[in-house]
Amino acid sequence: MIVSRDRVTLKMGAGGHAMRRLIGEVFLERLAGPEMLAGDIGLAALDDGAAVRIGDQWLVTTTDSHVVHPIFFPGGDIGRLAVAGTVNDLAMMGATEPVMLTLAVVIEEGFARADLERIAESIRIACAEAGVRIMTGDTKVMGKGELDGIILNTAGVALTSRVIPDRGLQVGDRILVTGTMGDHGLAVLAARGNLSLEVELRSDVAPINGLVRAALAVAGDGITAMKDPTRGGLASALHEMADKARVGILLEERAVPIRPDVRAVGELLGIDPLHVANEGKVVMGVRPDRAEAVLAAVRAHPLGREAALVGTCIADSPRRVVLDTGFGRRLLIEPDGEPLPRIC
Amino acid sequence: MIVSRDRVTLKMGAGGHAMRRLIGEVFLERLAGPEMLAGDIGLAALDDGAAVRIGDQWLVTTTDSHVVHPIFFPGGDIGRLAVAGTVNDLAMMGATEPVMLTLAVVIEEGFARADLERIAESIRIACAEAGVRIMTGDTKVMGKGELDGIILNTAGVALTSRVIPDRGLQVGDRILVTGTMGDHGLAVLAARGNLSLEVELRSDVAPINGLVRAALAVAGDGITAMKDPTRGGLASALHEMADKARVGILLEERAVPIRPDVRAVGELLGIDPLHVANEGKVVMGVRPDRAEAVLAAVRAHPLGREAALVGTCIADSPRRVVLDTGFGRRLLIEPDGEPLPRIC
Repeated sequence: MIVSRDRVTLKMGAGGHAMRRLIGEVFLERLAGPEMLAGDIGLAALDDGAAVRIGDQWLVTTTDSHVVHPIFFPGGDIGRLAVAGTVNDLAMMGATEPVMLTLAVVIEEGFARADLERIAESIRIACAEAGVRIMTGDTKVMGKGELDGIILNTAGVALTSRVIPDRGLQVGDRILVTGTMGDHGLAVLAARGNLSLEVELRSDVAPINGLVRAALAVAGDGITAMKDPTRGGLASALHEMADKARVGILLEERAVPIRPDVRAVGELLGIDPLHVANEGKVVMGVRPDRAEAVLAAVRAHPLGREAALVGTCIADSPRRVVLDTGFGRRLLIEPDGEPLPRIC
Repeated sequence: MIVSRDRVTLKMGAGGHAMRRLIGEVFLERLAGPEMLAGDIGLAALDDGAAVRIGDQWLVTTTDSHVVHPIFFPGGDIGRLAVAGTVNDLAMMGATEPVMLTLAVVIEEGFARADLERIAESIRIACAEAGVRIMTGDTKVMGKGELDGIILNTAGVALTSRVIPDRGLQVGDRILVTGTMGDHGLAVLAARGNLSLEVELRSDVAPINGLVRAALAVAGDGITAMKDPTRGGLASALHEMADKARVGILLEERAVPIRPDVRAVGELLGIDPLHVANEGKVVMGVRPDRAEAVLAAVRAHPLGREAALVGTCIADSPRRVVLDTGFGRRLLIEPDGEPLPRIC
């Protein structure tokens, strides 16, 4: 791996602070301007998407490229990932009813047409689950050897009357996760190698806008921030939320739901499930008086049965995440990024 | 080049009918549904973007991935191309004032940071020219050898009170091109090889929403269809417009502006400038009574000085393009696609 500051490294695409530094120095420096209207969310916010005031609504947009390897893995594939990733980013901003998605495909010459059809079918199913339509697209082909297989890009557009920025945490808020952590990242890693595992890990990749809608319906304005713990996992998401809101987060390690087989494979690979991507989960900040009601609503949703309250926002240790292990407390280190590339 | 129908070929990404067939069979088959509201423009329209009715306006979106090689070429680079491509696709639907763009970057490990900064700077300048802002983005890194350099994806969102679909041509409409044809494609091809040319061809890549705005201002509803002649060039654009509107197009070959050096390099390479991409030009259908006024308005714009009326929509030869060479008439063959890959 190249480590020079003159060259782009894998870590710079891995969702941690190496990536945020690259984006800040190269792109924000040049492209982020003052917000157009008070309250607009633009590039500098580094939120899950952008929000622009249009009349009495917010126009919310987001984009993601998907480079996952392998493209088919237990529980999903690159097509499902692309739809879920974009729908979920919109939902994280409170926009749970997308108007449309765009789909841009870059394919390597010689790619099997049957695989392309399988991906398209998976996109169709994920769109139906999310209640969204692909309304426009683009197709490019690169020469054999110029691209490893296929890349998808999806962008999404939604309208919402209320935007929830990811910087909204306040001291006292409870931290809720909507299910088990680490499933996607470790499933993809397990699918990649010849690990001879006795268990088959499955990705959690799913559009969770319906779950978020259910949570918002009972929360009123009690959900103060949301983030999907994708690249860099729960650890990155919590660090980013704490940093932006200038609060500390006390995370109760033993309250974080992790599947035993995910934990086992993580130990085998030396990878902490808190540091790898999820693709069908949400981290929410919830006002304490609404926490139990939101938890009940999330648990009542098929994608939220294992939801748990896992932490609290604190005034101490601002911008840090403190891990309560049950035996003591230590700082959770912010990862540089996902430990291995091309997870999503 | 692999030709099997079981594998994706370069031609399937080249903007011609091989591409439209792939998109139709793999994606439209599964993803295109009935339009949500009468007049909405979705995937099946294969227009430059999508349009959805929102209150008394249209929400227009478009997406494009950019894989051009080389990434820097005379007259532009991949960053300028990405901004112009998306701004222009919105403008082709009548939406000349974009609300925002998204920017997703996929980078090969080891890519020079100085090149990334040069691209970001070029994006900044092109955005300023177009009067648009990048409001959200995404960064991914692939391993060394997994991607040839860098891919950009831009999506754009705009609101407009009137949408101009690309299927609107009517018999009698004049065909206007806003400048010389073939500049971008041949400049990129010339930059690629060791051609030892005495001339340096320059790409025409530019956001042309300002020019379209000027044309619309004088046209009233006299502009019946627009398309930017990108992949596959003027030949593909005219075929698509004729096909969708079920009219014939009579193209006066000698009226089509082509730079002498572009023509010369095209002859050297055996490539017809009518078949290669432009990135700062528009093909317009204009009602005959508005043709001279629109032509004057376009010519008054710095990017439209060499605009010309080059053809007429006819009732004969529906869905075909007839080339009047000055010596006789023949059918202009619809190209399979751009003759060489990675032009845009």
